[in-house]
Amino acid sequence: MSLLSMLFGEKKKSANVAKERLSLIIARERIDQDGPDFLPQMRDELMQVIAKYVKIDQEDIKFNLQKQGNMEMLEVNIVLPDQK
Amino acid sequence: MSLLSMLFGEKKKSANVAKERLSLIIARERIDQDGPDFLPQMRDELMQVIAKYVKIDQEDIKFNLQKQGNMEMLEVNIVLPDQK
Repeated sequence: MSLLSMLFGEKKKSANVAKERLSLIIARERIDQDGPDFLPQMRDELMQVIAKYVKIDQEDIKFNLQKQGNMEMLEVNIVLPDQK
Repeated sequence: MSLLSMLFGEKKKSANVAKERLSLIIARERIDQDGPDFLPQMRDELMQVIAKYVKIDQEDIKFNLQKQGNMEMLEVNIVLPDQK
């Protein structure tokens, strides 16, 4: 299964109405866990960049933070409002 | 298979030396293909944000752009230099 279909595949089935979607994933593999966790702050700044390119409704953004061993992954899913 | 292990799993086997890694994935599902392709410009701005948080050597960045139907995905893999 490709990463692309993993990202968008499942949601597609449940969404009958075609919508544009944007997903941002930031994943970090750390060797030592003592360092600062900058992902949340970095996420906010990344969102500001994205908002320059696409119109985003705050309520259409879903965040998901996962940790697994020495890996952490922040997933941001945005349903873009209709442009037409 | 989780998205996390898909992102980092394979590389781990080939890398004997432990390195910190950061991956950024921007995926976009478009309804119509006529609109502007802003991913390359957005990528550059996102990289500037990331560079504020982690030291990045330009040669340790790998970009990968995939298109599949109405989906496009930009993957950025960064091996972080040793902090110690």
